Amino acid sequence: MKIENRITSLFDIKYPVIQGGMVWVSGWKLASAVSNAGGLGLIGAGSMKPELLKEHITKCKAATDKPFGVNLPLLRGDIADLLAVTIDEGVKIVFTSAGHPGRHIEPLKKAGCSVVHVVSNVKQGLKSQTVGCDAVVGEGFEAGGHNGPDEITTLCLTPQLKDALDIPVIAAGGIGDGRAILAAMALGAEGVQIGTRFAATVESSAHEIYKQKIVDAADNETVLVMKQLGMARLFKNEFSNDAILAEYSGMDKEELRELLGSKRERLGIFEGDAEQGMMEAGQVSGLIKDIPTVKDLFERMIKEYDDALNSVQ
Amino acid sequence: MKIENRITSLFDIKYPVIQGGMVWVSGWKLASAVSNAGGLGLIGAGSMKPELLKEHITKCKAATDKPFGVNLPLLRGDIADLLAVTIDEGVKIVFTSAGHPGRHIEPLKKAGCSVVHVVSNVKQGLKSQTVGCDAVVGEGFEAGGHNGPDEITTLCLTPQLKDALDIPVIAAGGIGDGRAILAAMALGAEGVQIGTRFAATVESSAHEIYKQKIVDAADNETVLVMKQLGMARLFKNEFSNDAILAEYSGMDKEELRELLGSKRERLGIFEGDAEQGMMEAGQVSGLIKDIPTVKDLFERMIKEYDDALNSVQ
Repeated sequence: MKIENRITSLFDIKYPVIQGGMVWVSGWKLASAVSNAGGLGLIGAGSMKPELLKEHITKCKAATDKPFGVNLPLLRGDIADLLAVTIDEGVKIVFTSAGHPGRHIEPLKKAGCSVVHVVSNVKQGLKSQTVGCDAVVGEGFEAGGHNGPDEITTLCLTPQLKDALDIPVIAAGGIGDGRAILAAMALGAEGVQIGTRFAATVESSAHEIYKQKIVDAADNETVLVMKQLGMARLFKNEFSNDAILAEYSGMDKEELRELLGSKRERLGIFEGDAEQGMMEAGQVSGLIKDIPTVKDLFERMIKEYDDALNSVQ
Repeated sequence: MKIENRITSLFDIKYPVIQGGMVWVSGWKLASAVSNAGGLGLIGAGSMKPELLKEHITKCKAATDKPFGVNLPLLRGDIADLLAVTIDEGVKIVFTSAGHPGRHIEPLKKAGCSVVHVVSNVKQGLKSQTVGCDAVVGEGFEAGGHNGPDEITTLCLTPQLKDALDIPVIAAGGIGDGRAILAAMALGAEGVQIGTRFAATVESSAHEIYKQKIVDAADNETVLVMKQLGMARLFKNEFSNDAILAEYSGMDKEELRELLGSKRERLGIFEGDAEQGMMEAGQVSGLIKDIPTVKDLFERMIKEYDDALNSVQ
């Protein structure tokens, strides 16, 4: 995998492979391992208070001298504090999701940050470009966790973003091996963001039960639920079944919110409650069969990429 | 695009590009044009009585000396008659969908046919292989028309089928240009089946209003509806809105069936009723910007494929 493009330049990385920010999964340990392996690690601030984010940034700096970034969910009530910590700690790469990048980009750009927004359709991509983002992540329907309402898959989204935008496109959703990395590049992406595959690594901070669930999953074991509240892709379990039945019963948003409750993600991913927790994961789980170290995973993905490239030549 | 593999051998075709069978779209005119261009054209029997299928096969034989096939939906009440016509007319390539291939494969194999079944998950792929199919089409969530309940996208389905099966895999769903053909091959497919892109060609027998709808569509204008009855991906319109509202209202299957009524596909695709008809189309519509001849489309896709291959090298 010898790739030099706008994404490897933007982040000063060897491989255009970015580890997605994931709640309860991607702390300093996973992010630094990915950066040390030649990709770009992201600390997922979604499950962190500002103080904890600061601690993770500090530890990540100690664990790698390579570039790393932070993923900030813009809808958080304390987003101003998360932004302040990120800037104060000198992080220069920020991925933003779930909100309007335009409202927060100015302080980040002033601080010299590269800003990448996660989008799920072309309209959001164009908006991200207009407000000054350096790149977008186009995240398809197959991705784990929170997901766009238009249900556009990575195969369809990536080339449409590529055609519509001047800034580079990073493909996400459904990417877990070197074959899919090559497929994304063929579609016009200049990088990939990988989530679930990195969630099932030694360095991931998720519960072992959750990691094993990814390894054991067949092709059809995730489902998109809570479509009226802001959907998420999860492993099918008692909670996801309840959520689907509730949606089809004509339940209103308030009742659905009550069913959802709070801390479902923590319960599933961090505490390992496989039935009542939200176990967010992508469709690519069906392809994942082990829990390697990040270093071994990178070596394997690079070989798979090279093999796939040979096979199409 | 210089590809020689098990799919080009199986069908004796120049390019491993198959035009999917589509109701009210793919008669002899489209199928023969695709075969003449070096791909494999399929007559879609889904909207044809046995007599009409016979007529289309006869006309297709007159219009091309290249191999072509027939797509047979196995759930049809008159499937025995459709099979008999296909065999009697000497068609040697049969794609089957929507049903159990094992129940009908014996007469087809005895008649010397290659049989390919359309699947939407790994379990169906394994079953197709076990009963003796020569290949499978793995059709992803983004595909237009009838669709599997597991919602697995082409990016996730293709490599999982490749890893699980010994017979070759044809990728379908979300493929409309040469970039996506290369992406499918990178994922391990040995061929692609393309639907919606061929529906918007000069030789397609669909209504002009339907073809123009494909051209005008943005990235997010299709939706999967009637999930309880056997889902289909359609353009969003008055009918699809009614269907979605009905599904979320707690309506039972009988009531949904009444809402669906009959001949909705004909009304949408063949008669051009853009609001009350089922206008089946894939997510790839957002990438389609014109209504070329099949010959021009092939030349363009081949150039796009070669350009994409150059870009990843």
